[in-house]
Amino acid sequence: MTDEATAFVPGHVTGFFSAHPHDDPAVAGSRGAGVALTHGVRVTVRRTAETDGATGERDATERSDPRATLNGDPVRMPPVSGVRDRLGVPAATVVAETPLPLGAGFGVSGAMALGTAYAANTVFDCGRSENELVTAAHCAEVAAGTGLGDVVAQARGGLPIRLEPGAPGHGEMDGVPARPRVEYVAFGELSTADVLSGDTTALTRAGERALSDLRADPTPETLLSLSRRFADEAGLMTDRVAAAVEDVRAAGGDAAMAMLGDTVFGFGTALSDAGYDPEVCAVHPAGSSLVTE
Amino acid sequence: MTDEATAFVPGHVTGFFSAHPHDDPAVAGSRGAGVALTHGVRVTVRRTAETDGATGERDATERSDPRATLNGDPVRMPPVSGVRDRLGVPAATVVAETPLPLGAGFGVSGAMALGTAYAANTVFDCGRSENELVTAAHCAEVAAGTGLGDVVAQARGGLPIRLEPGAPGHGEMDGVPARPRVEYVAFGELSTADVLSGDTTALTRAGERALSDLRADPTPETLLSLSRRFADEAGLMTDRVAAAVEDVRAAGGDAAMAMLGDTVFGFGTALSDAGYDPEVCAVHPAGSSLVTE
Repeated sequence: MTDEATAFVPGHVTGFFSAHPHDDPAVAGSRGAGVALTHGVRVTVRRTAETDGATGERDATERSDPRATLNGDPVRMPPVSGVRDRLGVPAATVVAETPLPLGAGFGVSGAMALGTAYAANTVFDCGRSENELVTAAHCAEVAAGTGLGDVVAQARGGLPIRLEPGAPGHGEMDGVPARPRVEYVAFGELSTADVLSGDTTALTRAGERALSDLRADPTPETLLSLSRRFADEAGLMTDRVAAAVEDVRAAGGDAAMAMLGDTVFGFGTALSDAGYDPEVCAVHPAGSSLVTE
Repeated sequence: MTDEATAFVPGHVTGFFSAHPHDDPAVAGSRGAGVALTHGVRVTVRRTAETDGATGERDATERSDPRATLNGDPVRMPPVSGVRDRLGVPAATVVAETPLPLGAGFGVSGAMALGTAYAANTVFDCGRSENELVTAAHCAEVAAGTGLGDVVAQARGGLPIRLEPGAPGHGEMDGVPARPRVEYVAFGELSTADVLSGDTTALTRAGERALSDLRADPTPETLLSLSRRFADEAGLMTDRVAAAVEDVRAAGGDAAMAMLGDTVFGFGTALSDAGYDPEVCAVHPAGSSLVTE
């Protein structure tokens, strides 16, 4: 048992997907493909000191989850609360740091859930295996409605392909064997719930077709062009992403949209060649893991 | 298409295992658990220049595989030849560098096979997914009789648990969520074939029991103590490893034997605390991947 532990979870941008809801959150998920990023979330879990004679107050504050912060600010993060519940560690204080924007399609909530699971398992001697920790985070994220496929992708790293939806034991993963440099520009937030509550027929058809085409040619270039086609066919591309993609293609490159955020991403120097001033990172080869000093 | 590509594959020490042979090498494999190491094998693949009018000579030299070197020395490595055959890239020259000893239980042959698959896929535009590359290397290793479970463990990284034997799509993996420092001393070589050609009943019974016990408590300490028990029960412990394990335990630590090598390993400072002068590395969190400059 230790007083605190830290995990690093890569950010994850989904390029295309199809949604596969299910009553059992371990079975629910998405098919699709994306990019695990060296820009990620560092999650530290500490054991909250017991407060004397303030049980009622603690119950109330737990509901607004003041024991989770993101870049120093208190944040209400239902997937983190869900992981606490599933691991039985209500006393886990969660401190997360990231260079990634929230709500812009980088899987920050999934990363916080998964990082909480890894670090809390160490601090509280939960005795779970990695598959069990990924399952706890995946289920918490699905139950909170904040994501369907980021957690399993972030647990894997690389350029993850989600062949079958769901947590370990249900889902099935593959990957594109490459590690390109990644550029991205985040213009703003987009509501995942708004998109997924509409008619997803076109989206699912486009996502399934992109997956089939990527399996036939699993390269970064194909992943990117299929992602661009998916955003177009699914009618999801925002005006700002569409304009950026057009600029990048005019400069001879390619780019696509992060699902679901008002964010454009590309490989190599695609965005900077088109005159943008992007954030720069790379494909993260590893999945989530504990940080050693 | 590029002229050369490099992949890094972690070394892998198996702590305990049960053998599960099968006519289909993708289905064959082992159950068990082990440790992926930051000490690994760096594999560079280059396109061999065509030689004029020397076809007969090339055929002859290909059989002795002069186009594979390990730390500068020509090496005959059937799993590497097997990967060349499976990917259809006879012109792949393989240059491998490693600090790990050969034949001492570190999965060097599996690493060379897997690294060849990753790097050759890039150089020759084979268009394979990661699962397909792991399958090619696993099958080549199984067909060559040099290993049963290293490749899938090396493709995963961490402290891999092999729940079900076989290549991706057949096997099933989990992991112990931890990243301890690793110490090891390699006393010498051990023949995998000699061990596996004998009666493996006791070995398989001991391996299956260790796996069941590790799943109940997936921690590094339990992995190590179960590995020690396995080597003892299976009657595999060499005199030198047995003496080292006794020394480490007398100093208050724990250690086990690398399957299959005359090698002792432990976590933290277990071996140095007992007066040994071990090699020191750590758990490698990522599986095999391409190296970027």
